[in-house]
Amino acid sequence: MTDAQAIAQRYIDLWNERDGARRADILAATWSSDARYTDPLATASGHADISKLIGGVQQRFPKFSFALIGKADGFGDHVRFSWALGPKGADAPIKGTDFAFVEGGKFKSVTGFLDQVPQAA
Amino acid sequence: MTDAQAIAQRYIDLWNERDGARRADILAATWSSDARYTDPLATASGHADISKLIGGVQQRFPKFSFALIGKADGFGDHVRFSWALGPKGADAPIKGTDFAFVEGGKFKSVTGFLDQVPQAA
Repeated sequence: MTDAQAIAQRYIDLWNERDGARRADILAATWSSDARYTDPLATASGHADISKLIGGVQQRFPKFSFALIGKADGFGDHVRFSWALGPKGADAPIKGTDFAFVEGGKFKSVTGFLDQVPQAA
Repeated sequence: MTDAQAIAQRYIDLWNERDGARRADILAATWSSDARYTDPLATASGHADISKLIGGVQQRFPKFSFALIGKADGFGDHVRFSWALGPKGADAPIKGTDFAFVEGGKFKSVTGFLDQVPQAA
């Protein structure tokens, strides 16, 4: 796999897409229909559930967007990359690292870990 | 999963075990019989193959051992941790981060990434 960076960017673009219909298109094009996503806060299976989960995160952080941190790394069908979630142009309060298994060019499963979360107020 | 650190340490102990029979015992106790391991350099399936792969790495680096870096992190059946491979008491030239899926308390699959490798001489 030579395009770990492109795969990771495609993933970030999905998480930043606020139009549900366009998210569905991206999911259809780049995620397996039985794809699974899991992180410490949520789990989702299939395009509809994953889109709903992303929409929920966007509603919770209406002024935040996702961006890649550093370079994505990949080999075979495996990709890892780190991301930040925060307001544009400011230091991001939330950071994480995701691990993706890609099959036939489509995301099959993604496991997300949190690297930084805001301290409770 | 509250014992990510213990799971990660069990994994490191396996990689440091130089006795093949003891490795087989550890694998039987802590890895699924159909467990899979993959990293950018090698892939192995099942206890015998995984033990052989570990033995090969040990032969290649006879004076090196593995150690955990920092704290392991986990949720649900997922664990991630970083490790160093190097001579005892000296800075380790090789570092990586592994992601494990654990089922019923046993390693089911491990995907390893390399964070630092020595530059070619």
